[in-house]
Amino acid sequence: MPEYVNVALDAMGGDNAPFEIIKGAVEALATNERLKVFLVGKEDLICQELGKYTYDKERLAVVQASEVIETAEPPVMAIRKKKDSSIVKAMTMVKEGECDAFVSAGSSGAILVGGQVIVGRLKGVERPPLAPLIPTKNGVALLIDCGANVDARASFLVQFAKMGSIYMEHVVGIKNPRVAIVNIGAEEEKGNALVKETFPLLKNCPDIHFIGSIEARDIPNGDADVIVCDAFVGNVILKLYEGVGATLISKVKEGMMTTLRSKIGALLVKPALKTTLKAFDASEYGGAPLLGLKGLVVKTHGSSKAKEIKNTLIQCVTFKEQNINEKIKQVISQDDE
Amino acid sequence: MPEYVNVALDAMGGDNAPFEIIKGAVEALATNERLKVFLVGKEDLICQELGKYTYDKERLAVVQASEVIETAEPPVMAIRKKKDSSIVKAMTMVKEGECDAFVSAGSSGAILVGGQVIVGRLKGVERPPLAPLIPTKNGVALLIDCGANVDARASFLVQFAKMGSIYMEHVVGIKNPRVAIVNIGAEEEKGNALVKETFPLLKNCPDIHFIGSIEARDIPNGDADVIVCDAFVGNVILKLYEGVGATLISKVKEGMMTTLRSKIGALLVKPALKTTLKAFDASEYGGAPLLGLKGLVVKTHGSSKAKEIKNTLIQCVTFKEQNINEKIKQVISQDDE
Repeated sequence: MPEYVNVALDAMGGDNAPFEIIKGAVEALATNERLKVFLVGKEDLICQELGKYTYDKERLAVVQASEVIETAEPPVMAIRKKKDSSIVKAMTMVKEGECDAFVSAGSSGAILVGGQVIVGRLKGVERPPLAPLIPTKNGVALLIDCGANVDARASFLVQFAKMGSIYMEHVVGIKNPRVAIVNIGAEEEKGNALVKETFPLLKNCPDIHFIGSIEARDIPNGDADVIVCDAFVGNVILKLYEGVGATLISKVKEGMMTTLRSKIGALLVKPALKTTLKAFDASEYGGAPLLGLKGLVVKTHGSSKAKEIKNTLIQCVTFKEQNINEKIKQVISQDDE
Repeated sequence: MPEYVNVALDAMGGDNAPFEIIKGAVEALATNERLKVFLVGKEDLICQELGKYTYDKERLAVVQASEVIETAEPPVMAIRKKKDSSIVKAMTMVKEGECDAFVSAGSSGAILVGGQVIVGRLKGVERPPLAPLIPTKNGVALLIDCGANVDARASFLVQFAKMGSIYMEHVVGIKNPRVAIVNIGAEEEKGNALVKETFPLLKNCPDIHFIGSIEARDIPNGDADVIVCDAFVGNVILKLYEGVGATLISKVKEGMMTTLRSKIGALLVKPALKTTLKAFDASEYGGAPLLGLKGLVVKTHGSSKAKEIKNTLIQCVTFKEQNINEKIKQVISQDDE
């Protein structure tokens, strides 16, 4: 079936599995004719749920996996022991070339570990970064890395910048994306040891459009398209985005409910406000790719519903058709010459 | 004048100097009888502005300083060269015991450098942290460190936790404050090398109420009172707080202006919303202390108005009267025994 982009989808991962996962798969198949989905998980459960839908049977297959890796499990051990889990089975399909990509809303830890040890890195890639899209004032930015590389080296960050640029340009469609490194001031001499070492390397990197440092304050404003940092800082940014957003929205709601006057106003404001704030919701933008692997691995939010699953599956088609991994290999191998 | 708490105030620092600074000083003097303020800066400018107000002349002195350190100047050079600047003169007054504290809305860099090289560290303190109060859902938390220690050691972070606890308990008035370390997961084995090394030290520290790791997502929710991290991470948190807040508020405003219906609603909602969101504004909570120095140094926002200056000056009185530096010396010197 070389005409399809084959995606292994973890039917068991996330808070809304398998119902929303399966719904997302069916919706994606209806939207994109080049997609074929392999639903991996408990066959009886999946088939029962599939009975509710009509879909192109040629482009949907069910693959039995009797085990599930839970979010709380230590990931290294889980990947090693649960050979018949949906994550291990689906990743093995990518490794063996049966599938081009793997999508899961399940355990982040297991996906990061499995990506490295089962799917494996592209030649020359030092560490695979996890790169979610975060909302900005008028669009999105790629925050790279939010994965496992909490004590990163400068050379990792340079590769992240290159891979992130390719992804933003060819999957998200931002021409000549602006790359910036997270820093605590705009001046070149600012930063911790890692940033000071990385800055000149990025500055001299011919493959990217490096615009210098970005302060965290300017990230939501959309001042850069590819935001480079180590995974500790990336995780702090990603989660604080969520936290400040949630607290502020609850404050806004609370404020609207304090007087009778404001309660009436709230009723009038609500529909318009909902539309605007939706644009600032990370789940609208599909999953986070784990880049630099032999195949694509995408982690979606644990709370993913059908829409995010659908968007992510379509992302996988673009990734494959744009030959992203060929482009990454090319830009990484230049360093070896 | 041992009966007063003597505070040297940089009349020339910040976007609204000297007008709002002087206004804040006059308001603080009217609020707190134990306070004496030394306005340091260009005497003619200050005296001209003071002419607009009535105040207790015994508790306000003007100290001439002909130079001003600008925000853009390299701080180490500025502190060394501009001997007659308001920052250097005021800090020298603290060093020589004429003043108990120094407050400035001026160059952060110069204040951090001057604190170390002019005022000097308390015996046993390895590095002085800058610790702003950040708003949370129902109160504030102390974010320690947001200063210069971007490549911190575990032993610095332990001292930050101790100093921060003392400040929160005795200046801000939070009994038995909950201390947490910024991390990327709740489990003890998570984190980068620095966090992994620091975690067990905090766990075994008898002087603090350590509650473990805090994910950035939970900081705005108020899950801890003292948030410990290195200054790189602290700066990212502080500035992203600002950035996400500003972008979301502008999104809310934009959302309210999209339809006629929502515009009418906005008029009704506005006053109540303003009150609620004000509680989430960092400038309400006074300046950020630079802890562990022989005397108190406080940095206020560059955009400080009279209210923040006033609140900060009153903070200085509490700091002195609660013998914070004695308490810090005690808890730090225990480590040497």
